[in-house]
Amino acid sequence: MPSPAPERKGQRTRQRILSAARRVFAEVGYEKATIRGIAAAADVDKSSVIQYFGTKSNLFREAVHWTIPVAELTVTDPAETAENYLRGLLSGWAAEPNGPMAVLLRNSMTSEDALELLREQVTDHAVSSVAATIDEPDARLRAALLSAMLMGIASQRYLLRLPDLAAASDDEIVALTVPLLTALISPGSAAGSTTILGEPETS
Amino acid sequence: MPSPAPERKGQRTRQRILSAARRVFAEVGYEKATIRGIAAAADVDKSSVIQYFGTKSNLFREAVHWTIPVAELTVTDPAETAENYLRGLLSGWAAEPNGPMAVLLRNSMTSEDALELLREQVTDHAVSSVAATIDEPDARLRAALLSAMLMGIASQRYLLRLPDLAAASDDEIVALTVPLLTALISPGSAAGSTTILGEPETS
Repeated sequence: MPSPAPERKGQRTRQRILSAARRVFAEVGYEKATIRGIAAAADVDKSSVIQYFGTKSNLFREAVHWTIPVAELTVTDPAETAENYLRGLLSGWAAEPNGPMAVLLRNSMTSEDALELLREQVTDHAVSSVAATIDEPDARLRAALLSAMLMGIASQRYLLRLPDLAAASDDEIVALTVPLLTALISPGSAAGSTTILGEPETS
Repeated sequence: MPSPAPERKGQRTRQRILSAARRVFAEVGYEKATIRGIAAAADVDKSSVIQYFGTKSNLFREAVHWTIPVAELTVTDPAETAENYLRGLLSGWAAEPNGPMAVLLRNSMTSEDALELLREQVTDHAVSSVAATIDEPDARLRAALLSAMLMGIASQRYLLRLPDLAAASDDEIVALTVPLLTALISPGSAAGSTTILGEPETS
């Protein structure tokens, strides 16, 4: 009878390769990264990388894949949706500077393949999920603007490390932006109009 | 008596080099760009590039310099400030895909020098100018969030070309976002609270 050990070892190797791949893609970029270099960074044979992932393109796709928390994005209260989304993004980026989203966004500025993946993930996952919760004819544009504004905040805070945003706490950012984002995805709602007047309902 | 012709010719050459430099920096990135390559793209001698700009670093600095329209950013009506800022950004990027801001942002993801310049321009110019118009203790954070959200929209629309944002018109984007941005830089104002309820004052 086979023991479960080899399978667990395989999972660990796979994760080690993915994590090394994100580091290498972040440092040298998609175009310059090589399977050989990633194997070296993960301390495995080149043949293992090929066995687990096939091509560099497949490896990149898996390394930068992240799951949009659709359940959290579609709660009944729009203010909660906006806050969940923002906090998820802020803590995700904060915890992992070489996380999938950061690596994908950084590479999408210089690689067409990465850009194509980013379009898929943002448009098919994030925008479509949020748009489904908005009962307006321009729901998709509202959801796309929400996503763009959040990415702008997260990228200037973590990728570009602009001082005023880097120095602020998550709570300060949530307090100032959640009322605005709520108004965007829930136009005319009581939440949108009340909170905008200066009483953000955080804390 | 010297004729003005040589000076005009010098200005034209300078502009041609700057424009070629932006193209090359956008295509191959700051690190891989060479003075020789930029000279070839501008159809001038390498020595001309050095004569006009000295080093690659200086050339980059001048090529990605853009002037933040401080006067427009500090009008009395915050809604107008927000709209001017957004429209300036949208039309600037739309008109020039290889414009200074686009080239700087793209390179700031992979070059520390570019990132340093971007921090200077966004923080010292944009954030400081807008913060000076906001009478709140967290004025700098509000201005930084405004800048981050606008950059998020502009970069997803033009650099990353996400379909929902790429398909929208400037007016649609202005109508949905200016009320929110106004509320951010003018908390508790009549403008912020009225427009957020569904009557954006565009058109």
